[in-house]
Amino acid sequence: MEVEFIRLADEIPECEFLIEGYPGIGMVGVIAIRHVVTECGAEPAFVMKIEDMPTAAIVHEGRVYPSAGVFVLDDLSFFYAEQADMRPGVVQKISESVAELSREIGVECIVCLAGIRAPDLEDEPSLYYAATSDKAAELFEGIAEPLKGGTITGVSGPLLLEGSLRGLDAVCLLVETPGTYPDPKAASRVVEALNEALGLSVDVSKLEEEAERIAKAVEETVQRLREQQRMEEEEAEPTERMFV
Amino acid sequence: MEVEFIRLADEIPECEFLIEGYPGIGMVGVIAIRHVVTECGAEPAFVMKIEDMPTAAIVHEGRVYPSAGVFVLDDLSFFYAEQADMRPGVVQKISESVAELSREIGVECIVCLAGIRAPDLEDEPSLYYAATSDKAAELFEGIAEPLKGGTITGVSGPLLLEGSLRGLDAVCLLVETPGTYPDPKAASRVVEALNEALGLSVDVSKLEEEAERIAKAVEETVQRLREQQRMEEEEAEPTERMFV
Amino acid sequence: MEVEFIRLADEIPECEFLIEGYPGIGMVGVIAIRHVVTECGAEPAFVMKIEDMPTAAIVHEGRVYPSAGVFVLDDLSFFYAEQADMRPGVVQKISESVAELSREIGVECIVCLAGIRAPDLEDEPSLYYAATSDKAAELFEGIAEPLKGGTITGVSGPLLLEGSLRGLDAVCLLVETPGTYPDPKAASRVVEALNEALGLSVDVSKLEEEAERIAKAVEETVQRLREQQRMEEEEAEPTERMFV
Amino acid sequence: MEVEFIRLADEIPECEFLIEGYPGIGMVGVIAIRHVVTECGAEPAFVMKIEDMPTAAIVHEGRVYPSAGVFVLDDLSFFYAEQADMRPGVVQKISESVAELSREIGVECIVCLAGIRAPDLEDEPSLYYAATSDKAAELFEGIAEPLKGGTITGVSGPLLLEGSLRGLDAVCLLVETPGTYPDPKAASRVVEALNEALGLSVDVSKLEEEAERIAKAVEETVQRLREQQRMEEEEAEPTERMFV
Amino acid sequence: MEVEFIRLADEIPECEFLIEGYPGIGMVGVIAIRHVVTECGAEPAFVMKIEDMPTAAIVHEGRVYPSAGVFVLDDLSFFYAEQADMRPGVVQKISESVAELSREIGVECIVCLAGIRAPDLEDEPSLYYAATSDKAAELFEGIAEPLKGGTITGVSGPLLLEGSLRGLDAVCLLVETPGTYPDPKAASRVVEALNEALGLSVDVSKLEEEAERIAKAVEETVQRLREQQRMEEEEAEPTERMFV
Repeated sequence: MEVEFIRLADEIPECEFLIEGYPGIGMVGVIAIRHVVTECGAEPAFVMKIEDMPTAAIVHEGRVYPSAGVFVLDDLSFFYAEQADMRPGVVQKISESVAELSREIGVECIVCLAGIRAPDLEDEPSLYYAATSDKAAELFEGIAEPLKGGTITGVSGPLLLEGSLRGLDAVCLLVETPGTYPDPKAASRVVEALNEALGLSVDVSKLEEEAERIAKAVEETVQRLREQQRMEEEEAEPTERMFV
Repeated sequence: MEVEFIRLADEIPECEFLIEGYPGIGMVGVIAIRHVVTECGAEPAFVMKIEDMPTAAIVHEGRVYPSAGVFVLDDLSFFYAEQADMRPGVVQKISESVAELSREIGVECIVCLAGIRAPDLEDEPSLYYAATSDKAAELFEGIAEPLKGGTITGVSGPLLLEGSLRGLDAVCLLVETPGTYPDPKAASRVVEALNEALGLSVDVSKLEEEAERIAKAVEETVQRLREQQRMEEEEAEPTERMFV
Repeated sequence: MEVEFIRLADEIPECEFLIEGYPGIGMVGVIAIRHVVTECGAEPAFVMKIEDMPTAAIVHEGRVYPSAGVFVLDDLSFFYAEQADMRPGVVQKISESVAELSREIGVECIVCLAGIRAPDLEDEPSLYYAATSDKAAELFEGIAEPLKGGTITGVSGPLLLEGSLRGLDAVCLLVETPGTYPDPKAASRVVEALNEALGLSVDVSKLEEEAERIAKAVEETVQRLREQQRMEEEEAEPTERMFV
Repeated sequence: MEVEFIRLADEIPECEFLIEGYPGIGMVGVIAIRHVVTECGAEPAFVMKIEDMPTAAIVHEGRVYPSAGVFVLDDLSFFYAEQADMRPGVVQKISESVAELSREIGVECIVCLAGIRAPDLEDEPSLYYAATSDKAAELFEGIAEPLKGGTITGVSGPLLLEGSLRGLDAVCLLVETPGTYPDPKAASRVVEALNEALGLSVDVSKLEEEAERIAKAVEETVQRLREQQRMEEEEAEPTERMFV
Repeated sequence: MEVEFIRLADEIPECEFLIEGYPGIGMVGVIAIRHVVTECGAEPAFVMKIEDMPTAAIVHEGRVYPSAGVFVLDDLSFFYAEQADMRPGVVQKISESVAELSREIGVECIVCLAGIRAPDLEDEPSLYYAATSDKAAELFEGIAEPLKGGTITGVSGPLLLEGSLRGLDAVCLLVETPGTYPDPKAASRVVEALNEALGLSVDVSKLEEEAERIAKAVEETVQRLREQQRMEEEEAEPTERMFV
């Protein structure tokens, strides 16, 4: 069950950072990277192929793109996948392949993006980080809090260790999210943190709008369900109340 | 779990196009290719063998044929299979092997045939395309519409990418189909599009007749079910209506 | 998951024909070959070993024999197995190994024996054939009818193709059978057809007797079940009829 | 899924016989060999390791022993395992490895020990044998009866064939057993037969005592269950008989 | 399914002992080793990687650590894992890899830590040992009792055999535990035994405190459940007692 990255472009520039966004809690990594790639016009550089899992073709305006791979923008590379293959052996191989690829294209620091479950989150989501070295930790000092304790799984956890075993710095940026649906609001906070840490200026207004649309849709759904429940109760009541 | 194409003929001519029809939505690719192969007398050139899945023998007038493989007609090659092996690893290997074989026999452009689900389709089915390059897109410009967005899975999706990774042009022709039963009508539209794009003149009257037979059989089944339901309701009613 | 044939005898004579009888519909191939081997005293020549499935030992009068392998009689070789391993990958490997072995021992024509389901068969079962070449078809012309259409699966289907891919002639002899229990009557017809096609003179009276025994046993079972049902109905009736 | 025998002693003497006792019907082989090994002080010579199944450690008086392997006593070697791994691929590999090891340590005759189910056995259990050659059959002539017919599975069946394929003599000694619990009485008969066939003088009194203990325990359990059932019936009866 | 130990430190000192604590009954090995490692500040030396199972990242104060591996303290090495992978093939490979690693870093004696189930344990838990040699047994003579009989499974059992097959001494220290929840009290006794056997002076007061916390929490839970049950019975009783 091999995982391979196959080069699309003839030449790939050296990249100082690789930023990882594999499907996980609240899809924050995927949403953040998809936004940065689209907003800044990053170029597809590698297709990811899993030996026994076909890579689907994503269609956009009559043109075909890979559903998993690496995009490049200046000295930044972005690994992301539209669909999650969560088989443990695949997750392990992806982590190894991404770390290996990072080394090959000159990456010095791997940045993992992940959600951290906060079921009752009401305010702005908080940001945390966990790093393999002081140097990696510095990237988000002042931007996020060091995470006290816990376990990082998915692709991010083993990728931190795999990077470290290859002599690279690695740090995970974690954002609070209820995690019950894709969360562009949390993703927006992640992009802002990347802006600050990496000196970018990616506009997040589209993510904010999407977050508002989702919030409104959720609100409406909740309203409709309540209304529906109320009406069912009313329908049900008369016969029960008759002899009260 | 290897997938191999084993040569049947001593010499295979160079082919400019490979047209793919693996079982999928509405079976449109399989039906279209089976029709072209039979109608034009294409010759069997390769048997497809999946390592751990026996290739059945198809019998026709006392003679035995492989149930999956490649047929050749002038500078066109046709890949098709009577039965679907939908295990993800097999789908991926088939895509790779077909792309590899295409390169070996000189193919310049891979044409994938697929159905696109249109549950409430009433009128003539529309045709769409999605391509990996401008040159591949040209093939169906004016014949079909560029597909706005979506995901192409099955063998077609990864085959588009695998072709592209080998420097071949690749394009998918998609036809609308309810997708609930094999759809020779949609397949007929596909064959007409191939006629126009590739300068063929394959007669589609048998597909039209088969489409009418199926439409009629479906109509009769629907009628019979309605009649049956009506009679069951009548049978059921008397005792219930007695005291009305 | 390899399949191997391991030589038992020091020298194996060249064989013109290999006749295959793997467990399938009505067990006609297995019964026919077991009968010919026993009746004519064919010699064990190869043991078949499936990598991850132990080959059981068959005991006969204090002596041990392999439960799957090839027996040889003059210029005829017989492949058969007492127990079926129907995993698709094993069926494919058996087909390949039998075709390969056939080539190694000089076989020119592979003859597959199979049942064809005829649930309501009352009269004598009909015989059909399907061949990979004119020469193979000739073997059963005048003895059986060419099969109009259908799909041959099990070991026979892929073995026909595998033989063909190795330049051997191959033909399948199919006999009608209800297929609900082992059918020595259909097997007897198969042996008679082999007698005629290959110039043998194997006596089939034991198969006929076995067929009569089975027919009688089935008849008795049916009678007993009917009687039992009638008695249960009688036992059940009194209390229900009491107030009639 | 490899099976290996790893040498414990620096030098292993040539052994004329290998006697096999893998868990099976009534555990007769295991019990017989465990008894001979303990009674005669055979030395551990090989540990058996199955690639994907840990070999447990058996503790006896503060010391650790392997739970599966080969013990040696003069020119006799004994293969046994405390726990059964009945996966077909493992059974096949064990048979091959034991036959291979036999050849390596100079074995001329493999003796398999097995139970043969006799559910209603009242008298002394009978002994049977089935051999791959006249020479192997001679070992138990006059001691056991040749087995008329049947199928030998487990490790014993394929081991007989594997030995035979390597030019070794092989014979299976089968003893009747109800097979519903470990049966030291049947094992005792097996040891007596080995005494006679191989010129040993292993005392079986401990097996006889164990057999009596088990017989007594079974008897007591049956008595207790009957008593319990009788009392439950008595408890249940009064209310039901009240109005009789 | 390979298991690898990947070196973290540039140089690893020779270690006389390797002490193993893989998750098992009462988690005594894991708890004991985690305590010694934390209390004495042992250094991470190797990460354990299972081919098809990602190694999670453990976060502690914003810093990332591997969840399975080897820590080193003077001439002692400690193997432990936070999470159990109990697939038999993995357990076997871990045993082999730990034994192999032990040999590579100069270990002379492997010490396995395990729980032994004592469901009704009231007093202080007893300590037992089982060894592969007299020399290994000496380590715990006077500290624990030799175990009369039994089977050691998990990682400890095969590790004892694997060490022995590589010429290393190996001994298992077993402590009684109810085994129904993680048992720091039993782990504390294990650490005291290690102190005595290896001449350490690890303070166990934190384990004792944790044991008291757990004992108190268990006690409170039991109390609460009893109280709850009593209240439910009271609620339920009135209607039932009414007519008593």
